[in-house]
This record gives sequence, C-alpha cells and structure tokens, in this order.
Amino acid sequence: MTGLASATAIVPSGGSWRGEVESGWDIFGNTNGGYLMAMTARAMSGAAGGRTPVTMTAHFTRPVRPGPVVVATEVVKEGRTFTTVRAVLTTGEGTHLAALGTLAAAEARGGEVTLVDSTLPDLPPPHECVRLQPAEDAPLPPPMMGKVEVWIHPEDADSLLGRGEGTPRIRGWFRPLDGETIDSFALLVAADAFPPAVFNAHLPLAWTPTLEMTTHVRADGASGWLRCQFTTRFVTGGYLEEDGELWDEQGRLVAQSRQLALVPR
Amino acid sequence: MTGLASATAIVPSGGSWRGEVESGWDIFGNTNGGYLMAMTARAMSGAAGGRTPVTMTAHFTRPVRPGPVVVATEVVKEGRTFTTVRAVLTTGEGTHLAALGTLAAAEARGGEVTLVDSTLPDLPPPHECVRLQPAEDAPLPPPMMGKVEVWIHPEDADSLLGRGEGTPRIRGWFRPLDGETIDSFALLVAADAFPPAVFNAHLPLAWTPTLEMTTHVRADGASGWLRCQFTTRFVTGGYLEEDGELWDEQGRLVAQSRQLALVPR
Repeated sequence: MTGLASATAIVPSGGSWRGEVESGWDIFGNTNGGYLMAMTARAMSGAAGGRTPVTMTAHFTRPVRPGPVVVATEVVKEGRTFTTVRAVLTTGEGTHLAALGTLAAAEARGGEVTLVDSTLPDLPPPHECVRLQPAEDAPLPPPMMGKVEVWIHPEDADSLLGRGEGTPRIRGWFRPLDGETIDSFALLVAADAFPPAVFNAHLPLAWTPTLEMTTHVRADGASGWLRCQFTTRFVTGGYLEEDGELWDEQGRLVAQSRQLALVPR
Repeated sequence: MTGLASATAIVPSGGSWRGEVESGWDIFGNTNGGYLMAMTARAMSGAAGGRTPVTMTAHFTRPVRPGPVVVATEVVKEGRTFTTVRAVLTTGEGTHLAALGTLAAAEARGGEVTLVDSTLPDLPPPHECVRLQPAEDAPLPPPMMGKVEVWIHPEDADSLLGRGEGTPRIRGWFRPLDGETIDSFALLVAADAFPPAVFNAHLPLAWTPTLEMTTHVRADGASGWLRCQFTTRFVTGGYLEEDGELWDEQGRLVAQSRQLALVPR
C-alpha cells in the first residue's frame, strides 16, 4: 500500500476496526474531514465484504487529532446489489463522526452515460496553475497540502489572496502524490481537499467547520489528474453549502459532493 | 395537529417511536421517501429534546407499505448547539431506511443572509400552472398528489406528457393542503414531492428508486407557497442525482436537497 491507501488503512479488531490518524493531515490542527471519511469508509467496506461506497454521508461532531481511532460498523441491510452500513469513529475522547453509506461492487457502476448537462471545469494545464503547499510560518495553506497535490486556477488563487473578484468558486487539479489509482476512498479525500470556495468571497480565512458532507462516487478507477470545481451559492443564517464536481482525465464525472458548513468567523 | 403533521406523527413507545404510515402517500405502491423522512425526523427530534433537522440523510433499503412502523433512534452526540442522531425505520419485514441527522434549536438558524448567488426559479403564479392530481385509471400522477398541492410550470408539464424539450428540470409550486406552517418536517416532504426531473428527459416514466436523499433545512417557519426547482445534470452508469431548491414567498431559500437514484427502467 502506498500514499492515500496506506494513510487511511484500518485493521479488524474484535468486531470493530482500528486505524491510526497520521499527523500532517490537518487544517488549523483539525484532521481533514475527507481523510476521516476515507478511513471510515474502509471500515464500512470491510463490513460490506469489500463493496465500496456509492454514496456516503458523514456528520462531524468533534475534531480529531493524530493517533489511534476505532471505527465501529453495523450492516443495516445487505442486498443483492447494495449494502447499507452505518459507522461511528471514536477515540477515548468520545465520538468524532457518524457515517451512513450505501456500497456496491465495482461491477454495479460505470456503465452507459445517458446525459451530461455540464461542461468540464475551465482550467489551464496543471503546471500553469498555482500549487498549494504548506506554509512554514502560517496556518494556511494547511499542512495537509503536503500530503496531496492541489493546483489552483490562477484566477481563483488570486482571490484566495484577497486580490480576486469575490466569486465563491475554486477550480483546480488534484492528484495523489505517488500516482496511485484514484479509487472510491481516494475520491472521498479529493472531494474535501480544496480550500473552502467561500475563501474567495471576502469571508474570513478561518476554520470552516463542516457539519455534514455527502459524496456520491459516480465512477472509480481514475488515474492521473482530477479536474475539480467547488462552488458555494448560499451563505445564509450562519450556514453555507459547498458543491463539488470531480472529473477524470477522460472527461468522466467521477464524483459529486455537497457539504453543509458553518460560516467561518 | 392537521395535515402533514398528523400524517407523520409518532409516539414514544418503550425507548423507540411508533408511527402509522397512512395510505395514499404512494408512488407505484411504494410510500414516498420524503414522507418517511419526515416521520423518521420526528422521532429523531423527539430523541434530541425537540431540536429539529438542519441536515438529514436517509438511505432507502426496502419499500414501505401503509401500516405501523417503528423508528429506533440513538443520539450520537448532544452538543451545546447541535445534536446528531441516527435512526432506523423498521417493520416486521425488516429495515426500510436508515437515517443520520444533525438537529438544532430554531434559534440556531435563520440569521443574516450574506450571499445568494442564484435567482428565484422562474414560475408563473400557481393557478397559471398545472396542478398534479392523482390519476383515476393510471399510476401517474401518483396517489400522493391527493395529499399535497403541487402545481407544475406549464412548460415542464408539457414535457411530462412527452411534448417537451427534454430538459431534465421540473419547476413548480408546493403547499400543504390546509395552510399549515411549513416547518422542517414539512420541508422534508416538499423536497421529495415532485415528479423526477428526468421524466422530462425522455427516460421511462417509471419507478425511480432513491438510494439516498439529503435535505438541508436552511430556514423554517415559511407559510403559503413554496417555489421549487429540481434538476438532474448527470445520468451516468445507471445512476442519477437530482438537486432541489425550495424558496418561500418572501424569497428566502428554505431548503436544498440532493438525491442519488437509480435510472428508471
């Protein structure tokens, strides 16, 4: 195992699953939500006989620091095609996230494309974008940017520095560090690897706590770069949603995501 | 209690909750998912001391017929502002849905609007639209249309009859039958009360099984009409997503929804 697969590995342990949250996956000291979803999803997949996530939701209840975690899984229903599983990730501190997912075998997806009502996110080639790398003396870009490759559209990177137009949109490229295949678990990481799109909308560059995140895996087995776009359309009553679209190099939509977060203060 | 509140009522029963799924809420004989989410959410709200859903996800594992159901709830985390609860809805047949939600007191939402990057769904007044009413001698429109008021944009209603342009979009108005306030629970019903947007895209008018639905309640306490729009952008590999936006008469976004469904056959 390499890279993302190794970093999110779990092992069975007395009816539950144990993992070790690696250091360096944090933003303002809190471990990235997509990373935790991938680790939790591996345990759910283990409970589902190796089926992998089609749709997975996590509700985040408490920040996670590096160290050992336990994921307790429960199969809600095992069907011919789909298995529905719920899980909680805990440490000695208590419960950090609860998840609910429906999983399927790889054969149960990836067929015919009937309708695509969208165009690919508009992006220059990766190396004409701006790579996010961990800042040495500031909290942003966060340490997690040392764990994956994220390259941002120059216009959106300008906005991140307060020089932009204020459109809450982030477009960019994602790939694992070492060329590993982008499976369902890697997609859960990718869908939460970019800076919040509202950082481009003149809101504070501060911790933006996610209450809930749902990712739909529309195709897996991509390799190379993912072309990604994240947008926020509504910041109301202290909440915001962020919608993501992830495409592979062949122009396939591989994942959609939506999260509900609290407005950064 | 009247209307939707009465139809989705639950009572505590030995640590769980009991409800009675009313007849007449079905599509092709299967009880509507939004109706089941509202009933499940009432049980979750009971477990959360009356807090109501901010974001709720349900995974549907088995169709439900009218009759008694049991909702078992478990509080994952009770915080100062939010309570996270998980639930399963069961009958003698087994588990029909699993849900995960984060709930809050009414005071924890409804504040300042910072950004709205959208325009209201374009609709003529309700009574210039086409009301969906249950067909007497056909499965569609479904019996459920006798339980709520749903009026469809004339252009989209044309498409439903196979005369339209093939755009997978349904715009229309929703209101409860008897003028009750549209609380969080009613929004869960409204978000799943319209025909699938793909019915407008030359796909079969057939049962479109939802695997998972997530609804964000962005504001509650609306009254009167909801102005709604549902779109599908990707039909790939046997799956489709449908995104909903629900607005109140004051022009407030009150809910967003997304579901992942199987392509109708």
